[in-house]
Order: sequence, then structure tokens, then C-alpha cells
Amino acid sequence: MTTHRLVPTAWHNVLGTVPPALTIADGDSVVTETIDAGGVDKDGVQRWPGPNPMNGPIFVDGAEPGDALQVDIIRMTPVRENGWTRAVLAANVVDPERVRDLPPRDRADWIIDADAGTVRLERPVPGLEHLVLPLEPMIGCFGVAPGLSQAFSTATSAENGGNMDYRGFGPGSRAWFPIAVPGALFFLGDCHAIQGDGEIVGTGVETAMEVEIRLSVVKNRRQVWPRGENADAIFTVGNARPLEQALQHATTEMLDWLMGDYGLSAVAASHLLGQVVRYDVGNVFDPAYTMVCKVEKKWLPKR
Amino acid sequence: MTTHRLVPTAWHNVLGTVPPALTIADGDSVVTETIDAGGVDKDGVQRWPGPNPMNGPIFVDGAEPGDALQVDIIRMTPVRENGWTRAVLAANVVDPERVRDLPPRDRADWIIDADAGTVRLERPVPGLEHLVLPLEPMIGCFGVAPGLSQAFSTATSAENGGNMDYRGFGPGSRAWFPIAVPGALFFLGDCHAIQGDGEIVGTGVETAMEVEIRLSVVKNRRQVWPRGENADAIFTVGNARPLEQALQHATTEMLDWLMGDYGLSAVAASHLLGQVVRYDVGNVFDPAYTMVCKVEKKWLPKR
Amino acid sequence: MTTHRLVPTAWHNVLGTVPPALTIADGDSVVTETIDAGGVDKDGVQRWPGPNPMNGPIFVDGAEPGDALQVDIIRMTPVRENGWTRAVLAANVVDPERVRDLPPRDRADWIIDADAGTVRLERPVPGLEHLVLPLEPMIGCFGVAPGLSQAFSTATSAENGGNMDYRGFGPGSRAWFPIAVPGALFFLGDCHAIQGDGEIVGTGVETAMEVEIRLSVVKNRRQVWPRGENADAIFTVGNARPLEQALQHATTEMLDWLMGDYGLSAVAASHLLGQVVRYDVGNVFDPAYTMVCKVEKKWLPKR
Amino acid sequence: MTTHRLVPTAWHNVLGTVPPALTIADGDSVVTETIDAGGVDKDGVQRWPGPNPMNGPIFVDGAEPGDALQVDIIRMTPVRENGWTRAVLAANVVDPERVRDLPPRDRADWIIDADAGTVRLERPVPGLEHLVLPLEPMIGCFGVAPGLSQAFSTATSAENGGNMDYRGFGPGSRAWFPIAVPGALFFLGDCHAIQGDGEIVGTGVETAMEVEIRLSVVKNRRQVWPRGENADAIFTVGNARPLEQALQHATTEMLDWLMGDYGLSAVAASHLLGQVVRYDVGNVFDPAYTMVCKVEKKWLPKR
Repeated sequence: MTTHRLVPTAWHNVLGTVPPALTIADGDSVVTETIDAGGVDKDGVQRWPGPNPMNGPIFVDGAEPGDALQVDIIRMTPVRENGWTRAVLAANVVDPERVRDLPPRDRADWIIDADAGTVRLERPVPGLEHLVLPLEPMIGCFGVAPGLSQAFSTATSAENGGNMDYRGFGPGSRAWFPIAVPGALFFLGDCHAIQGDGEIVGTGVETAMEVEIRLSVVKNRRQVWPRGENADAIFTVGNARPLEQALQHATTEMLDWLMGDYGLSAVAASHLLGQVVRYDVGNVFDPAYTMVCKVEKKWLPKR
Repeated sequence: MTTHRLVPTAWHNVLGTVPPALTIADGDSVVTETIDAGGVDKDGVQRWPGPNPMNGPIFVDGAEPGDALQVDIIRMTPVRENGWTRAVLAANVVDPERVRDLPPRDRADWIIDADAGTVRLERPVPGLEHLVLPLEPMIGCFGVAPGLSQAFSTATSAENGGNMDYRGFGPGSRAWFPIAVPGALFFLGDCHAIQGDGEIVGTGVETAMEVEIRLSVVKNRRQVWPRGENADAIFTVGNARPLEQALQHATTEMLDWLMGDYGLSAVAASHLLGQVVRYDVGNVFDPAYTMVCKVEKKWLPKR
Repeated sequence: MTTHRLVPTAWHNVLGTVPPALTIADGDSVVTETIDAGGVDKDGVQRWPGPNPMNGPIFVDGAEPGDALQVDIIRMTPVRENGWTRAVLAANVVDPERVRDLPPRDRADWIIDADAGTVRLERPVPGLEHLVLPLEPMIGCFGVAPGLSQAFSTATSAENGGNMDYRGFGPGSRAWFPIAVPGALFFLGDCHAIQGDGEIVGTGVETAMEVEIRLSVVKNRRQVWPRGENADAIFTVGNARPLEQALQHATTEMLDWLMGDYGLSAVAASHLLGQVVRYDVGNVFDPAYTMVCKVEKKWLPKR
Repeated sequence: MTTHRLVPTAWHNVLGTVPPALTIADGDSVVTETIDAGGVDKDGVQRWPGPNPMNGPIFVDGAEPGDALQVDIIRMTPVRENGWTRAVLAANVVDPERVRDLPPRDRADWIIDADAGTVRLERPVPGLEHLVLPLEPMIGCFGVAPGLSQAFSTATSAENGGNMDYRGFGPGSRAWFPIAVPGALFFLGDCHAIQGDGEIVGTGVETAMEVEIRLSVVKNRRQVWPRGENADAIFTVGNARPLEQALQHATTEMLDWLMGDYGLSAVAASHLLGQVVRYDVGNVFDPAYTMVCKVEKKWLPKR
């Protein structure tokens, strides 16, 4: 198990089949510094145009279509003392006629104190003078190359992952992506210091981070949509518009998981989900919305 | 502060302007036994046809259009040792072509042990033999009469509340509904012993309960959608299809609340919501879906 | 076959079970003057508050739940020389972020020349100086009382009809509504001198009209959604949000019609619809959108 | 003005930046034979895997980002005497619970008689024995390469066109696509002998055709979404899910067109659209739905 350091000199605005920036063995770890959603690095230098420039891709030896790529998010460390957000709710999350009343979509700057583990507005606004948020790092955009020679903008997401903007993808969590091309071609970037459900201002606190991840291949794991787990729960991720379709994808993927790996019938899986399922709204801002279907591990049958 | 007992002899399948079953003073409490979503009472007797027969309405003295009705859910005690669910995921929560594969929408029976505080399948299915769920009572359908002489089926929900099927409306929580008619005309019923997010099998564990609530009038409280709070959070409720519109209503209502009662500007409210908002999916089954927009109290400015 | 004249002195803002304004025999005709969507009559007098005050209801002898009410729209004659519209696209029909740029939602006045059969702006705006539209009268809101003691605002529509705002419901067309209460309880109002697809400014040219309709009972005609026909085509009407759900309802109703009355299998109906179906967007403005599924009569099998 | 013949030996399943198969001058015409949606050519030979293999791309000299590509569809001639369809309505166009009742999604074969100008089932089904449809050829999938190194599956569509499956794109019509890469990189394929609105069985009558098109560059024509015209009308095309979003895109593009090229204010454009707009449902089957916003030329101001 080697730990590699990936120092990009170029980035990507799509997840697609492009030459790998690094090739690793199954199970190796990678440490890499991401630049922010707008392409600005830890020193405040614009390194690449947005949206969401990606580090990578990383070619994982032995990864083949039909396998899944397991991504363990080991560590996320801010490498910059500031981040930024949009300052106003996105137009699509309020009642349409109310959009007329929204203020302009300015940017706001935030101070990230990695030692204290806090995030706060650089210039507090009235009523929020004392707002000190916890540092809750997450990866906004990561995933693998899609198949059929497709290449998707890092503004959006699909079966292969991408810009899911789900706050649950932080340190200690694990994701699995369905592999569509040899080597999987893993990309990551767009880290947030914190983000609410739905990314409803159109951003989290966008910043640059040093990220450590471990990439492993699960052979012959058929899955259609991203899956994940953390200490307490397993979850599936649907990326689509409208929100109901994202929910349908996530729920169908969970149904398949419960039936395929946990031996439940459709009825048993329905009983379980019906009474214990939890949904998280990943984002309701990007071209594809993200809905997460979650089941706490304590409810699962033994495998 | 009087506590009344309401013993219905007739029920309602709409929330509308019908003669009150009980008139109380502002701040009084009411204890009443509900029948289940199908109209079956604690003794297993079919008392009224479904869907969701309502107790009430309760006329609250002094309640006028333009006020809000505060509903404190004080206690919910199962009065029957069994409940029922649909046994299969609803067609609209899985990928459309996958609906072909779903088993028939049978019913399943559950055992409710109020003393132990547990809920479990009467006939365990393979893989769920050991599934013992906690009793987490909630009111599926409650609210006030809508205005303009409208009367809405208890299968659905709207600005006036109704069949929101949100698991957050349990003991210890509080709801506020916008009052549209004199006396508010409060209805309740359709209690569940437990329910997952989204009510994705089309039911929670449907049963009969004894419910104690307190009804109070908040004068001149302008709100469009239901609001609520519990020990930890305040929340707003949007009821509509599609799910995105429910989310828009809930978010707009929260924006109004933060600006109106907490003195935040649209920008300040956006900053707060953008980084700390949580959404709960009430239901994605009923004609109107329910989405809840929630903010933990610890993030709120002092009022 | 009698022709009745209904001269209302009160109107309704809901379709619901209220005392009839007129009782007629099966097959009788009715002539009645409607007031406009805002409640203004032919003399410019405000007679009733909006939205969409309805004439009626008309009780049709012999109409029972499980039957259908056939409505022949025989004649629609403007009784006022002016009408009005909203002057700006509704917020929900443009891209959300573009709503910020829309001008205020003012009203505009139009001149209706019934003799010439024309409709034009009272104060032409630059670029539209020569715009003279044809008078194409239509009923915006009509239908029957819903069942289960429900009462729906005339702002919206459902299985029972209501505010469908479909430009196809003009003179020479026929509608069928599923009857849910004894006597059917037929309502109508909200006539437009002309309207584009979707009612995307939120109105047609709203005015007062004298309308002649004939009401007949079709015994034991099971249908879920409104159906209609004109000289060239049969059509079904789905009323719901989102637009896709309205389309699903309309398509399912057409499938049922083709299978039930025309003897087609599901495969045969699919072949026909797949290659010849036409959809009309009734409205994309009201709380329930309206989508119409249409098949030209020339493609239908002989019954 | 040269007419080129493009005889592909390879096809593409994405619209993206790939080496051109042909380079032409601005205004040149191209004649090319397409294979069907499943990759079968005029001789019944499988030449390429689906979905929707594309001929091209064609590089047009002088085409630059910020320009528009004008595509005149001059001629479409079937080169095969048969075509095929899916035999059952797609699951997403009927009510979700009704999907359970749909028959299997088999294929059906159709006979195309180019001389007679007719299309009919090879094996008539009961009730459709006499169904003889007109040959109404259309291009299901065409467009240009998207920007930002993206590559989109020919199963879907976006700002750059693609699998719009709109029956209005037949001989005599003209389309304009926003150019995102040098040379425009034009693709086409997936021709249908006939198709209803919405492509609700998931196909038109899929077949191989000889197509003649002329490609011209309109310099500095800013447009976001595809535009088109035919003898009677101009139209805009929105490609997205849900259907309402496709409608928003198409309507916004038409608003921009009327304001930008016809000198109308937002209010004037609203007046016009409000009373005369027509919407066509392109498809409600593909990952992105297609909605067309149309205005008859007779209503337009002189340019």
C-alpha cells in the first residue's frame, strides 16, 4: 500500500476519458491539493478556469468496467485561511414570483480556522455577528469517467458521480462508483469547508484543501448509482432532475443493494425502508440534483 | 386552561368549513382518540370510511383569519396493539420501468407494544426476524380549515396543513397553521406508530391513538405555510408537487420567518440557510408532497 | 329539450357541493352570462370577488356518481367590448434566474369586436401596432362538483375539471366530466376571448360572455379525467403538477378510452398513440397544470 | 456551393469534439446515408452499436464559438423498406401504479413505402388493420459539439441539440444551433419515418435514410438553445428534465429572440406570446425532454 502525492499542473472541467495524471495500484492512497470551485489555489492564484477544476484523473490498475471503485476519504485539511460563498439563495429554491425580490448574487468571503475548526464570515452581517460554524469538510465533486466516450461537465453529476455537492462526503466516509472505463479514471476537487443541505446558495464555503483518499477496486460489483457508507449508515446517491427522479434513482439503488447484498426480498426491503429510511438532499442547485437514500446500519440484517 | 375530552361519533374526510364538534377557549387542551387511516378504531371496528377520517373540527374562541393556530402535541398513546402498513414501495418512488417488477401492494400487520415502546412485524419476513423498531408516534394528518369555502381531502395537504405525513410531528413538537376561517376549525387523525422519511410504502404503521394537544391562538401572525418547532430546531413545511415546489414553499416560508421574526436581511438569511439548513422529506406519496426546511436553534440570532 | 336561462345573483369561487342555482332535465340547454375572472360583469360592475366566480351549479336530473356529464358548448358571445390580460410572462415559465429581469405584472386592456371577430390591444405597444387577433372564445373554468365533500378553488383544476384554461374548449367542442355527486352540479365561468397555449401570462383575454351549453348524462360511463372531442379529434385532459404528471394522467385516460371504447389492446393503443398522438399544453400557470392528449378521429378504429 | 457526399465508415455515440469526417465550406450541402437508432444500415447490417450512431462530424470552415450553425433540411429519403418501433408506451408516460399493467416492451416492424409515401405495421394488430400512416420523415438526433470538452450521449440532448426527437425537424425546416467549438462539428442520424408527439413509445419508426442538408454559418448570433423555422412559424427548443424546465428554456429563448431580433420589449413579447404561443412536445422519453415554443410568422413584427 503506497501513498502517492499528486501535484497537478493542469486540471479538468469534465469527467471523461482523458490521459491519466497518475497511475496507482489497487488499494494505494493519494494525497493531493485541490484548488477551489473557481480555480483559485491555496495562494490565491487563479490556476485554471471554473467550473470546479478537477485533479486527476487517477488510473487504478486492475479496475475494469463492471467493477466498482471504492474511495475512502481519509483526511481533508484546508490549505487556505479563506473561502467564499454566493451571498443569496439561488432562484430555483424560492417561489418563482419571489425571485423578483432577491438581492444581487454577490460573493461573500469567509475565514477558515483549521486549528480551531471553525468557519465564519469575514465581514459579519447584522444578526449573524456571533455565527461561528464548525469546519465540516466535504468533497463537492468527485467520481469516475463515464462510459461510451461521454464527458460530463464538473458542474453536474450522473451515475459516475461528479458534482453531487453532498455534505455527507467528508472524512471518514466511503464512496463506491460504478466503473465504466479501464482504470476507472478517478477525479476529485471542489472542496467545501462547510455546506448546508441542498447547496441552496449555489456554493458551500469554497476553498482549497489537501485531501487524502484511498482507492480500491471491488471486482464485479454491479451498481448503477454511487453508493456510500459512514460509521453509522449505508447510503445510495441519485443524481438527476427533477428532485423526485433523483429520489427514485437513489431508492431503486438502495432496493437493489438490500436485495442483492443483504438477501432481502422486495417486500422485506420495502418494510425496512418504509419505516426507517432517511433522505438527505445533496444539492438542489446543480443541473442534476442529488438525493441520498440512507439506512442506519443498526437496522440492517447481518450479511 | 381546561382539558376537554372529544369523543367523536362522526368523522370527516375533508378539512373544510363544517360544524364544530367542540368549542374551546384559547389555550385549552383536548384529549381525543383517533381511528386509523382506514377508519378502524381501537377495538378493530370500522367506524368511518377512509381516507384518514378526522376528529373534529375544534372551534377555538378568538381565532380569526390572519392569526395562527399553535398546536402543542403533548402526548400520543397507542390504544391498540396492532397497526398496518402497505408491504411494497409505492410506484412513484422507484425508477418507472422498475415498477413492472414490484410485488402486489398487500398489507402487513405490525405489533405495537406501548409499554416496551416497540413496533414489530406480526409475521417476520426472512432477513427481518430481529427487527424491533422504536415506537415513534406522529400525527399524519392535522391542520385547519382552508379559506374561500374550500374543502380538501384528508389524502392531501396544502397551506392549511392536512396529510403531511411528516415524522417530525410527534410528542414534544409544536406546529403553527395559518388560520383562514373564524375559530380556526382544527382537525386531526391518521396517527402512525412509526414512519420513515417520505412515507414511501404509502403508510406509516397505521393505528389508533389517544392524543393530547393544546391549541392556542397567536394573534396577527402572518404566515403562508405551516411552521413548527421542537426542542432543537425551528422548521417550515411546504406541501405541493413536485418535490422541488414543496421545497420552494418551505424555503420561502423560512426566509420570511428569519426576516420577519429574527431581523435578518435576505443576505443574512441566505448565509445562514446556505451553510446550516437541513431538509426533511415529509412524504413523497400523497397528492401533495411535503418538504420540511429546518434550522437548528443554536444557529438563530436572539429574538 | 328545453332551453333555460340562468341569471345568477350569486357566484361561487369553488366547485363543490352547494345548493343548485338551476335544475334541468337531461339534455336541456342553458343560456347564461358569465362575469370575468376578476368578477366584473358586462357593464363593468364588480359583482363578486375573484378568482373566477362561477355561474351555477346546475343540477341535472338523473345524473348519478358513475355517470359522465356531457357538455356541448354551443355558442359563446362576448357581451362586453373589452377584456384584460396580465402584461408579463408568469415567473414559472422562464428560467428562474431570469425572473429578476421581468417587468412588473401590470394589467393591459384589450378591445373585443364581436362583429368583426377580432381582439386587439387598447393601447398598442411598439412593434405590435398592427396586431389584430381573431376572436377565439373559450371557457377557462368549468366542470362538476368533486366527490367526498371536497370543494376546490376555481383557481385550480382536478379530475372534475375546473380551471383548465385550455383553448380547445370553445364553441363546437364537447366535454365529458366524471360525475361524483347526484345531479352532477355543473359550474362554468372565466371565459376568454382568446388565449395562447399554456396561459403563460396568467390570463387569456378575460371578459364576460353569454354562453349556451347543453348538458346530457351518459349513464355508467367510467372515466377518471375529463374527456372531450371536436370535429376532428378526441382528447383527454390531465390536471396536475408537474406537467409530466398531467401528461401521465391524460395519456392513461386516453389509453383507457382506446381500450375500453375502441376495442384496442394495450399494444394496439400504444402503436396508435406512439405515431399519431398530439399533446396540447392547456395551462402551465394555475396550481394544477393542464395537458391534453389528442388523437385525430381519422386514425381511430370504427366503434 | 458544393454538394458533398459523406459515406461514413465509423459512427459516434456522442456529440463531442472528435476528428471531423468531412470538412466543408460555409453554405455547402452534404448528402449522407444514416443508419437507424440501433445501428442497422439500409441492408439490414449492424454497422455500429446504439444508441443512435451519428454520421459526422462535419467541420464547417469559418464556424467559431459565438456563431450559430444554420441547418437546412433539404431532403430525407428512406433507403430501406422497413422500420421498427417499441410496441408499448414508455413507463414514464402513464400513471406510475399503472406501469404494473403494461405488456412487455417488445419491438414491432413497419413497412415503409417511399413511393406511396406510407408507413404501416408489418403485422397489423386487431383494430388497426386499416391503419396507413403518412411518411413524415424527421431527424431524431442532430446538433453540434458542446463546449468545455464535454461529450454527450446521443441518447440525450442539451443546448447543442442532440436527441431532441422532435417531429418538426423534417424536410423544409431549418434549425440553428449555438456553436461552441471551431468548425461547429455537426452530427446527424437517428431518422424516423414518422413519430407522434413525445416519442411516447420510446421510438418513432426507426429506419435508415438518405439525408441532404445545407450548413451555413451565421456570424455572431448569440443564442443559448436551438432555434428553428418552417414555412409558417419560428420556434425555439428547450431540452431538459422536468418538462417544465424544458418549457422554461424554450420560452426564455423565444423571449430573447423576440426582444433581440424583432425589437419587442419584454411586455410586447409577453402580449404576443400570451395570446398566440403554441407548444409542441418533442419528446418525453429521453433523459432530457424536449419542449418547443412556437410562434406563427403571421403574428411577428417586420424585422
